[in-house]
Amino acid sequence: MNIRATLLAEFLGTAFLLMTIVGSGIMGEALAGGQVGAALLPHAIAIGAMLFVLITLFGPVSGAHFNPAVTLVFLIRREIAPATAVMYIAIQIAAAIVGTLLAHLMFDLDIAQVSEKARHGPGQWAAEVIATFGLVMVILGGLRSAPYLIPIMVGAYICAALWFTASTSFANPAVTVARALTNTFSGIQPQDVLPFLLAQVTGAVLAIPVANMVWRTPEE
Amino acid sequence: MNIRATLLAEFLGTAFLLMTIVGSGIMGEALAGGQVGAALLPHAIAIGAMLFVLITLFGPVSGAHFNPAVTLVFLIRREIAPATAVMYIAIQIAAAIVGTLLAHLMFDLDIAQVSEKARHGPGQWAAEVIATFGLVMVILGGLRSAPYLIPIMVGAYICAALWFTASTSFANPAVTVARALTNTFSGIQPQDVLPFLLAQVTGAVLAIPVANMVWRTPEE
Amino acid sequence: MNIRATLLAEFLGTAFLLMTIVGSGIMGEALAGGQVGAALLPHAIAIGAMLFVLITLFGPVSGAHFNPAVTLVFLIRREIAPATAVMYIAIQIAAAIVGTLLAHLMFDLDIAQVSEKARHGPGQWAAEVIATFGLVMVILGGLRSAPYLIPIMVGAYICAALWFTASTSFANPAVTVARALTNTFSGIQPQDVLPFLLAQVTGAVLAIPVANMVWRTPEE
Amino acid sequence: MNIRATLLAEFLGTAFLLMTIVGSGIMGEALAGGQVGAALLPHAIAIGAMLFVLITLFGPVSGAHFNPAVTLVFLIRREIAPATAVMYIAIQIAAAIVGTLLAHLMFDLDIAQVSEKARHGPGQWAAEVIATFGLVMVILGGLRSAPYLIPIMVGAYICAALWFTASTSFANPAVTVARALTNTFSGIQPQDVLPFLLAQVTGAVLAIPVANMVWRTPEE
Repeated sequence: MNIRATLLAEFLGTAFLLMTIVGSGIMGEALAGGQVGAALLPHAIAIGAMLFVLITLFGPVSGAHFNPAVTLVFLIRREIAPATAVMYIAIQIAAAIVGTLLAHLMFDLDIAQVSEKARHGPGQWAAEVIATFGLVMVILGGLRSAPYLIPIMVGAYICAALWFTASTSFANPAVTVARALTNTFSGIQPQDVLPFLLAQVTGAVLAIPVANMVWRTPEE
Repeated sequence: MNIRATLLAEFLGTAFLLMTIVGSGIMGEALAGGQVGAALLPHAIAIGAMLFVLITLFGPVSGAHFNPAVTLVFLIRREIAPATAVMYIAIQIAAAIVGTLLAHLMFDLDIAQVSEKARHGPGQWAAEVIATFGLVMVILGGLRSAPYLIPIMVGAYICAALWFTASTSFANPAVTVARALTNTFSGIQPQDVLPFLLAQVTGAVLAIPVANMVWRTPEE
Repeated sequence: MNIRATLLAEFLGTAFLLMTIVGSGIMGEALAGGQVGAALLPHAIAIGAMLFVLITLFGPVSGAHFNPAVTLVFLIRREIAPATAVMYIAIQIAAAIVGTLLAHLMFDLDIAQVSEKARHGPGQWAAEVIATFGLVMVILGGLRSAPYLIPIMVGAYICAALWFTASTSFANPAVTVARALTNTFSGIQPQDVLPFLLAQVTGAVLAIPVANMVWRTPEE
Repeated sequence: MNIRATLLAEFLGTAFLLMTIVGSGIMGEALAGGQVGAALLPHAIAIGAMLFVLITLFGPVSGAHFNPAVTLVFLIRREIAPATAVMYIAIQIAAAIVGTLLAHLMFDLDIAQVSEKARHGPGQWAAEVIATFGLVMVILGGLRSAPYLIPIMVGAYICAALWFTASTSFANPAVTVARALTNTFSGIQPQDVLPFLLAQVTGAVLAIPVANMVWRTPEE
């Protein structure tokens, strides 16, 4: 493994993911004329399509985590070294912030922003547990059932999850931190970040034993 | 076959399917501002995308029925044992109810609800016959024409069927029962459930001989 | 070739195609609240998704023409016998009409209708020439470049063509005839049918020599 | 390489791409009733779907560039001869203009138009750098990670990029020049063309060394 290429892949993938999340939110809200539903559908389609592209492109280089919760799962399963995992997570958070700022740059908005959008309550926290549980199930199950379909499955899952979870499925701690820095459609106020992170880690960790029960090795 | 893993796969798949159906309906209606069309399109896209994901993931474990009408078809074709079929159907119904309640939980709604939405009349019943007939044709034909494409075909078929059938294509008895327990966008009042179930079973059973006529074995 | 299975495949595929076209148009118009754009998008998505499904399912049985213009192209290329082509076209037209009537049945509308929607003028005729030319290019080119992708390419092409052609891309004589029999969103008044058919045949026939120029055999 | 077939492939692909861009914009605006968001979503879906189709069809013949920035990248990488590259770019520009005029013809508009739509400013220019950088990354990375998925990746990327970039992602000099000749939804006034071209070339050239860093050969 060439660590420079690997970290560059995590950086580019996560930065493009955040540009897509934040940028499509800004564009959608600007065009929707007050009807939020008209903003959420293209937001979900753009994010789903981009996840498919980014995971296909960068998967063979870095595994295309783009998500500290995913890196944590592979660390727990001892499929990534602790030092590498730390570098992955640091790069993911940095790239998520850079992607958010680039979205502001493209739309001629103030680069530095802090979100004022409230996102909390038991329903939203349950939604983040479920969303992240499902995402990790898709990845761990996909590795057993159809590895070559993981990129399109993750894209389709997140596109759907944006609509069926009350939180619109952040499901990613790096994404959550970065979205505190945009006071636009996709933002989350800083005081609501920590419970989202806890919910995401809970959902991710819960998925590990459940996936082991469903996708057993033939010998078991 | 590991029966515990198999039933867990049916449970998880059916529960996520119902969370998607009920949850995306709640979200869509909340955002649509009274324009139902704006709620049905993301509903259809989310359900189609999620069916693709769930059938790909769980297909190698349980066959990914998630649907008593499908299990019935395989029972009639003697491709599943009667005792297993009974367990499948029981788990599907239980999981469908759990998924519906989890959707209520995520959106901070009353957990226990009963639908008041009327869905009946000859047109809707004909629609359920046709929708389920088509679904079983996709599965039985797909097994002959392109087995690896069944997950995406089922997703695409249901996404389309939500728009071309007057009933929005329930096409699944477990889904129908569970949707009586949500007084939201996707609900159906309890007194309208039984005719839907009869129409679904009719359509499913009709598809068996027709599929046999279309996709004959080479020797025939 | 089992001719009964073949014709049944053409019948089922064309009937489901028309149920999708007419049905999604009725549903879309009912939900759009007067905004036609909100009806055309799900209409296009449903038709594209269903074409992918139907061509994948029935392609190995009958070639999945569902379209007299396509059958004509294969007749001119001597890839279907004249007698078989005549049966194909007759079945396609009958199935298209049956599918239209079933859509009316599902939506509790009068079964027998005649469209009053005007669709004519040089722009619309040019659009039908271009739409059908493109459809035949997709099929003939797909047979050379990527045969296994023809079902998804035809679906994606028609989904796009509904939006970029002024006529919303009928591109199919059987579909055109049947749509004269529905006075709903997707209808066409009877006096406008013949010019559409002529434009479609023109576009289809034009595509044959152009495809031969682009996709030459290696020996050429 | 049969140069006549190759140039014909570039011509047909680019002309259909522009018909899709300009035509779906006209249709979308006509149906949207003043809500621009309702026009941009089908525009993005139609363009993404058509790119998938056109690149799949014509890729084996000409490489399916349809884009002078892409041809420039292959020229810099010495994967296309200079004389061929010049012919490609000339044909792409001519075909883009023809496609634009055919879209006007289909919608009964004046054939010759000049856009009056302003598209400029640092945000839009940054957006074009990023959009074209990403497009070339998809192509160069796709050639290493998953060549057979390049058509669908380019379609999905552009569909998403239409929503996350402030400029709606022209990302193609031939497309940009041709869109100056339509005073409809997708137009760009002539005085704004040159900065877009410079931004596109900048983004494309920047992607070459970055792609080399990410997708190294195993020996490196």
